[in-house]
Amino acid sequence: MSQLRIAEIFGPTIQGEGALIGEPTVFVRTGGCDYRCTWCDSLHAVDTAYRQTWAVMPTDAVWQEVQRLSKGNPLTVSLSGGNPAIQDFTQLIALGHAKGYRFACETQGSIAKPWFSVLDTLVLSPKPPSSGETVDWTAFNACLQAATGAGKIVMKIVVFDDTDYAWARAAADKYPDLPLYLQPGNLEVDPEIAVDPQNLADKLLWLVDKTIADNWFVPRVLPQLHVLLWGNKRGV
Amino acid sequence: MSQLRIAEIFGPTIQGEGALIGEPTVFVRTGGCDYRCTWCDSLHAVDTAYRQTWAVMPTDAVWQEVQRLSKGNPLTVSLSGGNPAIQDFTQLIALGHAKGYRFACETQGSIAKPWFSVLDTLVLSPKPPSSGETVDWTAFNACLQAATGAGKIVMKIVVFDDTDYAWARAAADKYPDLPLYLQPGNLEVDPEIAVDPQNLADKLLWLVDKTIADNWFVPRVLPQLHVLLWGNKRGV
Repeated sequence: MSQLRIAEIFGPTIQGEGALIGEPTVFVRTGGCDYRCTWCDSLHAVDTAYRQTWAVMPTDAVWQEVQRLSKGNPLTVSLSGGNPAIQDFTQLIALGHAKGYRFACETQGSIAKPWFSVLDTLVLSPKPPSSGETVDWTAFNACLQAATGAGKIVMKIVVFDDTDYAWARAAADKYPDLPLYLQPGNLEVDPEIAVDPQNLADKLLWLVDKTIADNWFVPRVLPQLHVLLWGNKRGV
Repeated sequence: MSQLRIAEIFGPTIQGEGALIGEPTVFVRTGGCDYRCTWCDSLHAVDTAYRQTWAVMPTDAVWQEVQRLSKGNPLTVSLSGGNPAIQDFTQLIALGHAKGYRFACETQGSIAKPWFSVLDTLVLSPKPPSSGETVDWTAFNACLQAATGAGKIVMKIVVFDDTDYAWARAAADKYPDLPLYLQPGNLEVDPEIAVDPQNLADKLLWLVDKTIADNWFVPRVLPQLHVLLWGNKRGV
């Protein structure tokens, strides 16, 4: 059994963003990331300063925990992080699929893995300039290639400012066949500080207004519902 | 050309709810409805007291208006109401499809129409007990039958209270193959009164918590984003 490095497993809750927004989901959040986005909202799964909080678990222990949380009722399991593409989920997906569970994975598209091809949903979220990272499009294309056979492949881009927005448009033009989801960036990532829902609405409106002013009717524009519901609290 | 009775045509904006949440959309809201839901949020398109505000337009005038609003850029056109299934959208859909537009229709499922089969998305939203209406499931089944060939058929149920919730579960059991979307009901429908986003979040949380407490992982649970963004203002 593969070993997996896990920051947290939690749920069921609803998926708060993107293509599966509203979908009942158990999250398997892996520890470790090849990126260091300036505005990362999951540093506890990224920064090696938190490494001692990550559990090294055999795949069957992860699968037991997913079944315990969902009480054996099949639902969507979201592999997130950190960057889950660092690790090997082949066995977890096989165990879950055998029981009717579905698997989504969210990754920036920097590392391709063969198990992308058996996912139900692959969300590739290339990071815009405000992240401080630079996308390697060759690696991104390798992810698309590896995902051939996946149920659905979509692209999600977080937009913090006008520069990110222009970058998102150019990225969309590169991949006209990928369904595109935009979401406004969230700088209020402290789990201890309550989020103002009006602020969330205002940022969404800003992004909706931009796409409409440009007659850019390609992306679906969505908020982070989990932030509306729970602020930046962990484990929901 | 068919004549259409139109309450309003507006957009582009984003679809605020259901399967196409976040999708850039022009809304064609028809006038007239065979239902009188107690909590209707679109009485101006339902109550015959507003009948003099509805325009009778030939289909090509509706199509011209959709093109003008979208500046000729293809997007999703949502046929809503009232109950759009009272009318004949065959020609509008054909005109739009020829230019790459997509068509979604939202109806309670009380009247079946042949043009359901050429829709890209049919949203059937049977009304729960709190509406004061009673669903005719024979008519609902006829809608499903008429929609054979449509791109996607989904069910959406608004839930105001525990009785509605139990009813939604039973309806879902009847149609296990229909993707299901639940949304909390909205009683604050006065366009003049500002909506409290925290209240919207609280109602969503109530519904999310219910489905999860019951290990009912079938429906996607979503809010009305347009209410978060614009309250109950019309034309957005």
